[in-house]
Amino acid sequence: MSRPEDRIATFDQDGTLWVEHPLYAQAMFALDRVRVLALSHPGWKDSLPFSAILAEDQAAIAKFSEHDWTEIVAATHAGMSTEEFLDIAAKWLVTARHPVFKRAYTDLIYQPMLEVMEYLRANGFRTYIVSAGGQEFVRTYAQRVYGIPPEQVVGSSIVTDYEIENGKPELMRLPRLFFIVDGKGKATGINLFIGKRPYAAFGNAVGDREMLEWTGVGDGARLKMLVHHDDGRREFAYGPAGGLPDTKVGAFPDSLMSEAKAKRWTVISMKEDWKRIFTFE
Amino acid sequence: MSRPEDRIATFDQDGTLWVEHPLYAQAMFALDRVRVLALSHPGWKDSLPFSAILAEDQAAIAKFSEHDWTEIVAATHAGMSTEEFLDIAAKWLVTARHPVFKRAYTDLIYQPMLEVMEYLRANGFRTYIVSAGGQEFVRTYAQRVYGIPPEQVVGSSIVTDYEIENGKPELMRLPRLFFIVDGKGKATGINLFIGKRPYAAFGNAVGDREMLEWTGVGDGARLKMLVHHDDGRREFAYGPAGGLPDTKVGAFPDSLMSEAKAKRWTVISMKEDWKRIFTFE
Repeated sequence: MSRPEDRIATFDQDGTLWVEHPLYAQAMFALDRVRVLALSHPGWKDSLPFSAILAEDQAAIAKFSEHDWTEIVAATHAGMSTEEFLDIAAKWLVTARHPVFKRAYTDLIYQPMLEVMEYLRANGFRTYIVSAGGQEFVRTYAQRVYGIPPEQVVGSSIVTDYEIENGKPELMRLPRLFFIVDGKGKATGINLFIGKRPYAAFGNAVGDREMLEWTGVGDGARLKMLVHHDDGRREFAYGPAGGLPDTKVGAFPDSLMSEAKAKRWTVISMKEDWKRIFTFE
Repeated sequence: MSRPEDRIATFDQDGTLWVEHPLYAQAMFALDRVRVLALSHPGWKDSLPFSAILAEDQAAIAKFSEHDWTEIVAATHAGMSTEEFLDIAAKWLVTARHPVFKRAYTDLIYQPMLEVMEYLRANGFRTYIVSAGGQEFVRTYAQRVYGIPPEQVVGSSIVTDYEIENGKPELMRLPRLFFIVDGKGKATGINLFIGKRPYAAFGNAVGDREMLEWTGVGDGARLKMLVHHDDGRREFAYGPAGGLPDTKVGAFPDSLMSEAKAKRWTVISMKEDWKRIFTFE
């Protein structure tokens, strides 16, 4: 039996706690910010990747490289203080609507995951988000939506600098990546921010592999779960595991499915195992 | 009145919670590690900075540059897994003795600071260490000595890599600095790891300036305290503030004293204000 102070449960966010298709909410946020900021960047309409966004060229957007996204993040997530950024993100979340469900992103959270978080907390666990998404972005809603406080959000970050603006110190967000909490970075990030090995870890994609592996090699019983998006009727169906369509957004490859089976990680079928997917159903 | 979940108190470690003179405990650890590891590094006896350590040249050690220390840290703190490092550090702490007090470093903690931590916790605060010292090094004893768990230790870190060794994943410590939690890095580190502004912050040196400033510009009442080492009889006396000897280890310059007075930060005189410095007295 784990000691209460060691009861740590880590949750991936996009695709594990809320909808990630057709595109991560934070990517949608970045695209919307490009549209807003384009007013003061007239050059963007002739310059990729911004021109593709402004022309609403969905095919081009779907093919954006990591370098394109880095440029978009730098243009939309940096150049303001953390306070300003939290404010911009919070306001966007109030008005933005998911293109298919036509609901706020914060409505599109999975009811069974809320229940498992509640259950774990009732048994002395602290629940952490460990997300490749931006740490500050997730912090804007994690407390309200999941009951997870800022200090329990481990996410990707850009460099911040302590600067004095009008006589007052501010943390300025610089257009430079600092730490990416994905793949191996989920395991190292858990050690950096928590310093304890989780007793339970939940993910849904190849970027969660190392987090589950790291959790699984701890002593005693450890819970490792992967959400498989196999319900195209109620949500989305993608893999490519299970013969579902391949995707660049939250891929669950056959290799991950094989590893899950070999290592006895529990794979959740959204279609078979979840009576109710969303709270609003 | 602050909400319970926002009650965060941050403490510098060296010189604020325990003795830092004549040299930081972790620097003493590094020097001892050089002596041990020299057996398998015969070249060190002819190569600075290692040769100065092996020759016990205290004058040269006292003048080591930041670059020298970076080289020493790389040689002594990297090249093993975090588990191995925690084990090495924990064993050292059991046997190492302070050169003046002839006691374990973990005995040389300040009784009044233990009391203020207890008091804050009894009032719903969570107490964090925010140290320029190594995060993993501090984690080896923070729980036992201060009651501060690993996830509430914010410290400097080197890069770790997730590697498979003999079929088992390990976090390998690489000889490359990742994040230095000093000066501005204390304010940005608090935001990165906690995401909340402290209501109370305690330091003792110029590297704590920004942490206190960042704490102080929050709304409502915020406690900012600096420990001044002015008791050469019971501990050590250094400044240069207060006309005390200058030092490279935990300097408290006149500029910091002036700022403290101007901004109404409380300066603790160890000589006048602390009836008892150590628990063993």
